[in-house]
Amino acid sequence: MKALEDKIRAEGKILPGPVLKVSSFLNHQIDADFMMEIGRELAARFQDAGATKILTIESSGIAVATAVGAALHIPVLFAKKHRTSNVSGMLYQTLVHSYTHGTDYTVVVERDYLKAGDRVLMIDDFLANGKAVEGLLDLIAQAGAEAVGAGIVIEKGFQEGGALLRAAGLRVESLAVIDSMDENGIVFRNENV
Amino acid sequence: MKALEDKIRAEGKILPGPVLKVSSFLNHQIDADFMMEIGRELAARFQDAGATKILTIESSGIAVATAVGAALHIPVLFAKKHRTSNVSGMLYQTLVHSYTHGTDYTVVVERDYLKAGDRVLMIDDFLANGKAVEGLLDLIAQAGAEAVGAGIVIEKGFQEGGALLRAAGLRVESLAVIDSMDENGIVFRNENV
Repeated sequence: MKALEDKIRAEGKILPGPVLKVSSFLNHQIDADFMMEIGRELAARFQDAGATKILTIESSGIAVATAVGAALHIPVLFAKKHRTSNVSGMLYQTLVHSYTHGTDYTVVVERDYLKAGDRVLMIDDFLANGKAVEGLLDLIAQAGAEAVGAGIVIEKGFQEGGALLRAAGLRVESLAVIDSMDENGIVFRNENV
Repeated sequence: MKALEDKIRAEGKILPGPVLKVSSFLNHQIDADFMMEIGRELAARFQDAGATKILTIESSGIAVATAVGAALHIPVLFAKKHRTSNVSGMLYQTLVHSYTHGTDYTVVVERDYLKAGDRVLMIDDFLANGKAVEGLLDLIAQAGAEAVGAGIVIEKGFQEGGALLRAAGLRVESLAVIDSMDENGIVFRNENV
């Protein structure tokens, strides 16, 4: 998505890690008009997938998931971070490893909102090592629902998540895939195609 | 907002507290189409306020704030919950008391995104005791920005937050105000007007 690549180049900051900081428009401050545009673009890419529900993880996935849900006219469910691993039988739960914080955290969804028969489109702001999507896949499997794909705003193509998920047969659509980034700038995949 | 009151009556569950559980459409699962409708209604109520930015708190305020931002075509900023009270000088921070969890938590925004000159519309899913809005007001004051009002989806009118904020001169618009709720049902303010 050219407009997204342009915006990342104009506003993104590359920090050690490398971390791409896009908190001016994506995950702290939100450019609401642009977010709706992102939602329409992801919706268009999955228009044929027959999704009945969107699943994301709080917090930074919520805005983009809502925008996609509005474009596809389907409900959005966000998995909540849970303080303890001791949760009730009314919930599906899974552990997600965070490389950023060097820790595991538990996320939960209420069983009432994820059911066998649901065709679930996963949405997130970033895809790096793929641990968040793997956690969502586990929740979907527990519910006996079906994953129809993952729609991602920015994929760090130099980390393994996208390749692993695609190799496992998951349909992954990322609006911008970064092949490399450093002090010299950002190289997007297929940029010159 | 009649459609909201109807939806609360149809889908809301009253739990001890009293707590109103509306996680089927507002703050766990999100009815994306209806959320955009809520956003347009709150935007209409503040159309004349000259807001330049929306401020909310993660996580449950993000979807509604994004919907209002899309309707008003202004950016959304969400205050992030911070694990420690030890934060950097690049952030504004404040303490918010949570009655639900019986604890204080720190929320932060980056100084870059909240400036003197900003006219800030606060948005949240619930207003009860008003502590979240008070925290946002503190962040706005630290930035030397101006609060133009608070737009709320559901106000618990039987708790003191709304009355206190209005008495302090803040413009508060709530799409549904609950005057009482118990096993006999829900009474909305001005319902028969």
